[in-house]
Amino acid sequence: MTLAIQQSEYEERLAGLAEQLSERSLTGAVLFDPYYVVYYAGFAFAPTERPIAFVLNAEGKGGMLVPRLEREHAQANASVDHVADYPEYPSETHPMESLRGLLDEMGVREPFGADQDGYPWVLGYRGPSLTELTGATPEKITGFVEDQMAIKSAAEIELIRESSKWGNLAHVLLQRYTRPGLTESEVSRRASTEASLAMLDAIGPIYRAQSFFFDGASAGYRGQIGRNAAIPHALANNIVFQEGDVLVTGATAPVWGYLSELERTMVIGEPSAEQRQMFDHMVALQDTAFAAITPGARCSDVDRAVRKYYDDHGLWDYWKHHVGHAIGLRYHEGPFLDIGDDREIKPGMVFTVEPGLYAAGVGGFRHSDTVAVTDDGIEFLTYYPRDLESLTLPA
Amino acid sequence: MTLAIQQSEYEERLAGLAEQLSERSLTGAVLFDPYYVVYYAGFAFAPTERPIAFVLNAEGKGGMLVPRLEREHAQANASVDHVADYPEYPSETHPMESLRGLLDEMGVREPFGADQDGYPWVLGYRGPSLTELTGATPEKITGFVEDQMAIKSAAEIELIRESSKWGNLAHVLLQRYTRPGLTESEVSRRASTEASLAMLDAIGPIYRAQSFFFDGASAGYRGQIGRNAAIPHALANNIVFQEGDVLVTGATAPVWGYLSELERTMVIGEPSAEQRQMFDHMVALQDTAFAAITPGARCSDVDRAVRKYYDDHGLWDYWKHHVGHAIGLRYHEGPFLDIGDDREIKPGMVFTVEPGLYAAGVGGFRHSDTVAVTDDGIEFLTYYPRDLESLTLPA
Repeated sequence: MTLAIQQSEYEERLAGLAEQLSERSLTGAVLFDPYYVVYYAGFAFAPTERPIAFVLNAEGKGGMLVPRLEREHAQANASVDHVADYPEYPSETHPMESLRGLLDEMGVREPFGADQDGYPWVLGYRGPSLTELTGATPEKITGFVEDQMAIKSAAEIELIRESSKWGNLAHVLLQRYTRPGLTESEVSRRASTEASLAMLDAIGPIYRAQSFFFDGASAGYRGQIGRNAAIPHALANNIVFQEGDVLVTGATAPVWGYLSELERTMVIGEPSAEQRQMFDHMVALQDTAFAAITPGARCSDVDRAVRKYYDDHGLWDYWKHHVGHAIGLRYHEGPFLDIGDDREIKPGMVFTVEPGLYAAGVGGFRHSDTVAVTDDGIEFLTYYPRDLESLTLPA
Repeated sequence: MTLAIQQSEYEERLAGLAEQLSERSLTGAVLFDPYYVVYYAGFAFAPTERPIAFVLNAEGKGGMLVPRLEREHAQANASVDHVADYPEYPSETHPMESLRGLLDEMGVREPFGADQDGYPWVLGYRGPSLTELTGATPEKITGFVEDQMAIKSAAEIELIRESSKWGNLAHVLLQRYTRPGLTESEVSRRASTEASLAMLDAIGPIYRAQSFFFDGASAGYRGQIGRNAAIPHALANNIVFQEGDVLVTGATAPVWGYLSELERTMVIGEPSAEQRQMFDHMVALQDTAFAAITPGARCSDVDRAVRKYYDDHGLWDYWKHHVGHAIGLRYHEGPFLDIGDDREIKPGMVFTVEPGLYAAGVGGFRHSDTVAVTDDGIEFLTYYPRDLESLTLPA
């Protein structure tokens, strides 16, 4: 038994991309984005100054370029026919020369597609663009790749379901251990460690994290507390919990790279009338969004429905962001539940639903649930209690 | 008291960049790389599909573009004169329109510089290049930025020194807790948690992590064990330690974004003759590198000296990578101690020194130390024992 994506599913993904290349009369494609590489080749890696690329040719054969350092890892893990390696970066011969050789060998030549015109210049890497390397400017095929990744298979949704369970465990422990006088760091580390070790003992042999951001189940705080104002994505400080705090949490777990998102607003001690009112509006905003997510609607319709609630209740002073985003191998991905995204909502899409209210001095209020779009509505992949009573902690 | 980089130092950095713009007759520069933004503006953020940019004009004034969500955070933290924000991504008006407005307002027009031609298409982001947005192709100024970042100030080296202390603590605990029968995850989480909580109690009020990869002091294993072959950067599995294992560790801690790197090779139980021989060669390789790092030499000279040792002792079967890399705000950065990097070694550069030997079935052997180049040699910023006796664990 394994939870992993099966070889046949990688083959379907590759076939879909190969068909797209054929439709566009392209001889092949080069992908550098690490998430695209793990999607098509099943090879997870932390991107560095040593370039890694996935190549597909018109016959549907896959190849990879990796540094010597990753050769055995790629040979053992990547679902491709051919792994080429170069000695090192920068080395005396630039790694892009090895990519040129791989492209020649696989018959990829003008016209071809790519996600970007060369390996991005990160962590000190410098090198030629694909245009400079090959003399041909690649056609940008990001749109197709993103569209393909946006519709999750049953197996992908199952991995997100599995992620939700371990995120849920981490969150239960986070809530249980959070008490006035303790610090954010000690509580979130304890909850995350216990959940991660349980996860490894439960499913360790049949799963891998395949993530370079998350190293197990985790639950923690996102820095939102009434006291220090309401900044959603601020980097966390080590706050000592006190009565009256409004806390916004976040929990997830990577399962073969797939992620869920669970966030809850919790209050320490009896909520004030103002806190209760904000909380209730936030839950109503989220309910409005759930009701609006339906196959055939547009993503922007969901944001529009939620914006109407902000309008109707005079809540615009507390708005900071759209309703949500797709999620899968990436913790954020498109489509976005945003007034500017008119893409159609389709079965198999998985979204976070997380409209928020941020009131300086009162707190940040946001739940986030992960839902899969079905043929006639949504399935909740997260299932943590949403009501204020369940989320009120003893003072 | 604070450990933070002082405002005057940010001003010097900006003055250096402004001078460069002036020399190249550019009206300004746009930077998207998050490490460049934290270097010049002191603003740390996790890059997402919501674009963030730093802008400098020819007068040396700095500006930032951020999403609404990050407005207060940027206003409170960024060392710039002007923070512009856009409501959301994608929204009805593309965020790049707001960037266009900021550039106009700051007088940045053709010719101008940039690190890349537009915000990278990550996590579902799509948008116009700077060329498409402005009609002018920006001049790539990455080379200057990288050169400036490569020479660390006394204050930056002090932060790397501080990082080393907490990485050292995490490593001491990692070594202390590693015993046969325990798992990699439980040991590394225990060591990392205890070191991080101690770090927060000791210096919490005068420091911030400013890192989106590391959330405190950490020490763990990099997957190298004789048993499962020798793959340096493999994602870790949860191995149960046994007698005879050869372990390669890694420890660091982010201090205002700055990182050190400490890695050690440890053996559980009495090392075999083969393990001892590999270990001794590895230490000799590292000593060879230390001796070769001297101001005025080229980076390639160091790799060449170390390669001669591989030559002289017939060790090429065990080679996988170059000697090391610069380190600072990024866990890898240039210059590289690599045969292909002819840049001159200068005082203020900080390098990791980590030649390795990888023998299938025996183990991976690598120490990594972080050293600062001085006027006449190197200063060790890491100081963990390097000898086999100190690194042999009870079976």
